[in-house]
Amino acid sequence: MNTTPSSPAPDVIRSAYAQLVVTDLAKARWFWVDMLGFYVQYEDAHSLYLRGTDELTHHSLVLRQGETAALDHIAYRVRTPEDVDKAARFFRALGRPVRRIPAGEGTRGLGDAVRVLDPLGFPVEFFYDIERAERLIQRYDIRHGAEIARLDHFNICTPDVPAAYAHYESLGFGCSETIEGDEHELYAAWMYRKQTVHDVAFTGGAGPRLHHLGVATHESHQVLRCADIFGSLGKEQHIERGPGRHGVSNAFYLYLRDPDGHRVEVYTSDYYTGDPDHETYRWNVRDDRRRDFWGNAVIESWYKEATPVLDLEGRLCPVGEAQLDESTAAVGADGLG
Amino acid sequence: MNTTPSSPAPDVIRSAYAQLVVTDLAKARWFWVDMLGFYVQYEDAHSLYLRGTDELTHHSLVLRQGETAALDHIAYRVRTPEDVDKAARFFRALGRPVRRIPAGEGTRGLGDAVRVLDPLGFPVEFFYDIERAERLIQRYDIRHGAEIARLDHFNICTPDVPAAYAHYESLGFGCSETIEGDEHELYAAWMYRKQTVHDVAFTGGAGPRLHHLGVATHESHQVLRCADIFGSLGKEQHIERGPGRHGVSNAFYLYLRDPDGHRVEVYTSDYYTGDPDHETYRWNVRDDRRRDFWGNAVIESWYKEATPVLDLEGRLCPVGEAQLDESTAAVGADGLG
Amino acid sequence: MNTTPSSPAPDVIRSAYAQLVVTDLAKARWFWVDMLGFYVQYEDAHSLYLRGTDELTHHSLVLRQGETAALDHIAYRVRTPEDVDKAARFFRALGRPVRRIPAGEGTRGLGDAVRVLDPLGFPVEFFYDIERAERLIQRYDIRHGAEIARLDHFNICTPDVPAAYAHYESLGFGCSETIEGDEHELYAAWMYRKQTVHDVAFTGGAGPRLHHLGVATHESHQVLRCADIFGSLGKEQHIERGPGRHGVSNAFYLYLRDPDGHRVEVYTSDYYTGDPDHETYRWNVRDDRRRDFWGNAVIESWYKEATPVLDLEGRLCPVGEAQLDESTAAVGADGLG
Amino acid sequence: MNTTPSSPAPDVIRSAYAQLVVTDLAKARWFWVDMLGFYVQYEDAHSLYLRGTDELTHHSLVLRQGETAALDHIAYRVRTPEDVDKAARFFRALGRPVRRIPAGEGTRGLGDAVRVLDPLGFPVEFFYDIERAERLIQRYDIRHGAEIARLDHFNICTPDVPAAYAHYESLGFGCSETIEGDEHELYAAWMYRKQTVHDVAFTGGAGPRLHHLGVATHESHQVLRCADIFGSLGKEQHIERGPGRHGVSNAFYLYLRDPDGHRVEVYTSDYYTGDPDHETYRWNVRDDRRRDFWGNAVIESWYKEATPVLDLEGRLCPVGEAQLDESTAAVGADGLG
Repeated sequence: MNTTPSSPAPDVIRSAYAQLVVTDLAKARWFWVDMLGFYVQYEDAHSLYLRGTDELTHHSLVLRQGETAALDHIAYRVRTPEDVDKAARFFRALGRPVRRIPAGEGTRGLGDAVRVLDPLGFPVEFFYDIERAERLIQRYDIRHGAEIARLDHFNICTPDVPAAYAHYESLGFGCSETIEGDEHELYAAWMYRKQTVHDVAFTGGAGPRLHHLGVATHESHQVLRCADIFGSLGKEQHIERGPGRHGVSNAFYLYLRDPDGHRVEVYTSDYYTGDPDHETYRWNVRDDRRRDFWGNAVIESWYKEATPVLDLEGRLCPVGEAQLDESTAAVGADGLG
Repeated sequence: MNTTPSSPAPDVIRSAYAQLVVTDLAKARWFWVDMLGFYVQYEDAHSLYLRGTDELTHHSLVLRQGETAALDHIAYRVRTPEDVDKAARFFRALGRPVRRIPAGEGTRGLGDAVRVLDPLGFPVEFFYDIERAERLIQRYDIRHGAEIARLDHFNICTPDVPAAYAHYESLGFGCSETIEGDEHELYAAWMYRKQTVHDVAFTGGAGPRLHHLGVATHESHQVLRCADIFGSLGKEQHIERGPGRHGVSNAFYLYLRDPDGHRVEVYTSDYYTGDPDHETYRWNVRDDRRRDFWGNAVIESWYKEATPVLDLEGRLCPVGEAQLDESTAAVGADGLG
Repeated sequence: MNTTPSSPAPDVIRSAYAQLVVTDLAKARWFWVDMLGFYVQYEDAHSLYLRGTDELTHHSLVLRQGETAALDHIAYRVRTPEDVDKAARFFRALGRPVRRIPAGEGTRGLGDAVRVLDPLGFPVEFFYDIERAERLIQRYDIRHGAEIARLDHFNICTPDVPAAYAHYESLGFGCSETIEGDEHELYAAWMYRKQTVHDVAFTGGAGPRLHHLGVATHESHQVLRCADIFGSLGKEQHIERGPGRHGVSNAFYLYLRDPDGHRVEVYTSDYYTGDPDHETYRWNVRDDRRRDFWGNAVIESWYKEATPVLDLEGRLCPVGEAQLDESTAAVGADGLG
Repeated sequence: MNTTPSSPAPDVIRSAYAQLVVTDLAKARWFWVDMLGFYVQYEDAHSLYLRGTDELTHHSLVLRQGETAALDHIAYRVRTPEDVDKAARFFRALGRPVRRIPAGEGTRGLGDAVRVLDPLGFPVEFFYDIERAERLIQRYDIRHGAEIARLDHFNICTPDVPAAYAHYESLGFGCSETIEGDEHELYAAWMYRKQTVHDVAFTGGAGPRLHHLGVATHESHQVLRCADIFGSLGKEQHIERGPGRHGVSNAFYLYLRDPDGHRVEVYTSDYYTGDPDHETYRWNVRDDRRRDFWGNAVIESWYKEATPVLDLEGRLCPVGEAQLDESTAAVGADGLG
């Protein structure tokens, strides 16, 4: 796979939104809006445009009704309109499929965008222009459920983590943390543009697949509250793993599965990474605190299951096998070894 | 005032409910139900019967529509039906007005009750029998606002705190904490039957008046959330004092005023007092941490304003002047000295 | 087993303290004092007397150096000195071993006590008199670790849960919650004297063994903090299960194992049970929320391992086999079925 | 005052550290280290170098023993070594005093730096190079007191807020929020380089003076804990204002005064500002929620008192009078109008 770009990278600001295909929009609305607390910015019979209550742009999550549950695309915001063009040239130079999506023809609320199938096989959009939305930051009166404040990150499954690392490095991402073997084999990596631990992370495994979306709350009691509400309704089967404290990122977390099986992480309290010489922190794959700081075992489904992705024509992408399997390497925390 | 009883005291279990007269039931519903999170057990055009989500009996707060905002009565639950009779005899022996209220004629959900005007001039009810209500303890899905779990205590203004102390002692109440002058003049006292810091407390001041109802949440973040929601709606004028940490009781608190000016304290995290030899903890009136452990000044309205009370015929009781004035004695915390 | 008493039961106030035999006092001190935050009321070369910072009596936990890790005894406080005598007569009438322990000859800080081997085979002490200790309730400056406020309960393993239930009922304990089979076979029960969910609970299993001591914090963030500190030190193997929310009791919990394998539950936020007609809440053994409200699986060791108990002569008691095995009956939450 | 730069601005990363002169280093150590939880990176007889537990560079606070309590300087980190030179040229072009401080001659842990007296009269340092320090992010075992994670911002008093705004705008700072009069007179502004609400804010008032340093915790319960510890020790007089929720920034806050009167704000939970088109949010000076979202009055000392600053020769700078006085304009929240 050629990941050495011959065209300058766009200036990516942050992970901006994901579009998921869900098979039952009403059930998805229950999960993401009623339970997680996303705010509905727009909805019609076929789609929901959602944002967290700290977000000031039109949406950070689009749910689109469809036949097969899948990731339609993830999207990064770039710094200027010119960076959208840069993104197109960057991926064309890599020989990847690229599609221009003029304002009004693609996702509601966006201006001109570019959608590509990146070297890892993921459908990724780059855009600058997005409608601003009413400030809800202090609308405690409409907060409910998990009180999601904003999208935090994408976590993707890819068979070749070093290639994913190299690709995102070429896009200007920094690396905050890794999980590595004794010979520095890369099992997982967390990479960022905004000043948090990550905008994107790679979980070694069959891919391209979406492992999860990470969404942020302000404090840990909101994470507990979310789990409690699922229990109250007898919907505890949506809770897959946690709550717990991550070793990597130090965030407090809870993994949920939506009615289609899409995984979401409710996530809070990581740390600042904005200094220019921020160093990567490296975990050994056999440290049982790396994925749960308290040593609690990782559920097998968390390692094995993920969301398929669509290509630019909306067809399911074929999935390649994992090269290194952390769930086998791992001992304590995973209980799978 | 004769407070030496010649008849045995009823076995009081706990502060059980209060009935307030409100002048606008819709506005009161907004405050107590929407904002504080009380659950509506019953409502009609003239009244609201409310309880916290941990409470298993029919109500802990009755709001009754009326001309003049007032306290109709406070009520204690007793251990057995016979204790209701004991209460009647106890107050008759004191020469106080006593009224029997057969089941079905008084407050909805109650069995036979006795209502008295106690030696302090307060309308007080004693009952044993009360309807049980559906368990909501784990209904996190319906919690909202301040997420009130239960009624905790009554705080009453009385000109003669030593007399109030003696009266409640004769009813078998223990004393957890006091505020005293250098010569042990009693400025305030906290007295309990259930195993918390108090079921009733006395604030020296013109009385009989109701200073506030104390209602409990599980954790302090719920108290903060409550204040935040008032701010969101531009209703911050309902916040009178706090949030803060009490010296007395060590509880975390927030004082609010309802649309009629009735004061309520959202209260959490006091301590166990159930041992038979539990000792009274005494604060000096000049310790600026006694009312706010962080030394923040007490708002003047908090010392001066309170809810008038009704007698057994529903007429406003005349108010006697304070004998000792803590707000004058006080130095630091109060900013009033 | 004869559990019908012919002598009146003592008036038990609450679960008061436990004495554990630990094999390395220094390691035990690290765990209970440094990590959990217990306050050292007294220590010498052979023993540690500890209490939580809300506790006003001399100790709630005694750690005694010994050869074999075991429970020496659990202890209940009774209402009056006469209740100590009542306890002696009560257990003698049941034909159980009873030993008087005069003040000064038994546990430091206590007055006259009675120690018995109860019908379930557990070493249990009853006492009234205990030294008072300095008030630490507001000593936030010395709080550390898990910031344990007080002992909350004992949880004991017994092969015959209905017999345990009957015995404690005869001692005047109420029952807040149970786990039952479809035919109301009793798998577990939570019983109380103080106004919380329990002073003692029974886990069906080989016994007599101590399943765990439950110790209370004020809020859930203190429980998370405790787990985080274990992770920081690479001592996450002391974390056995949780943090999580219980179905039974609704408390937020974390189970830890001390250096000798004694299990302790850090526990917060249950509910008031003090009304005279408080009803038992019954969970079906197949409800996967009963032991974890979020449906997380119970670790196998949690069901299988426990602390042996000593008889009145200090010898290890033989252990009887379980009659009903919840870990087999259970499906979802336990992952053991 | 000339604030139009003729030389390009350095690329500022963030507010990086402050150096305070304290008159009693031992007392200052108690406050900042024991009570606030700063980590001591280095200390000698005359100085303390401190950082929060999330910080990965040598220090974010330097306390220097001296005769007169003052601000020695604030410091910003820039993106590259060249930006240090740019800073020198930028301020020279403005005709301001500029001093080069070679590595080893200035603040411990730093490389080459430039110190200037900026157009507002403040001593400000710019540096790129700083020693890295051991990662403490997950050292929950050494956290204590307020558990400060990192420096968040500087708040400075200046008589001419519009001039301060223009100066920092010329340095490339964005503006997240303002307090304005009806005619958009600028009373206060919050400006940022890192992706939070601010690195620096201006409080209209006599200046140049340092209003406060803002230091961040992860969650609000850590702020409460900090206040509680001050109360425990009878040191509640160090608590000046709060805890409370800000209108501006939405952060949860507590203002403390150190033994020399230097003000520090413990601050948590603001929001992301990293998007290129982030818009300024404007508060009217008469909205009583702007400084406390709950409408609590601002203490007069908070408006009136501040720390004097030193010039590049270490002499106290003269203080100019305020031009607009928010404390007079203000109505509700301030109680000063």
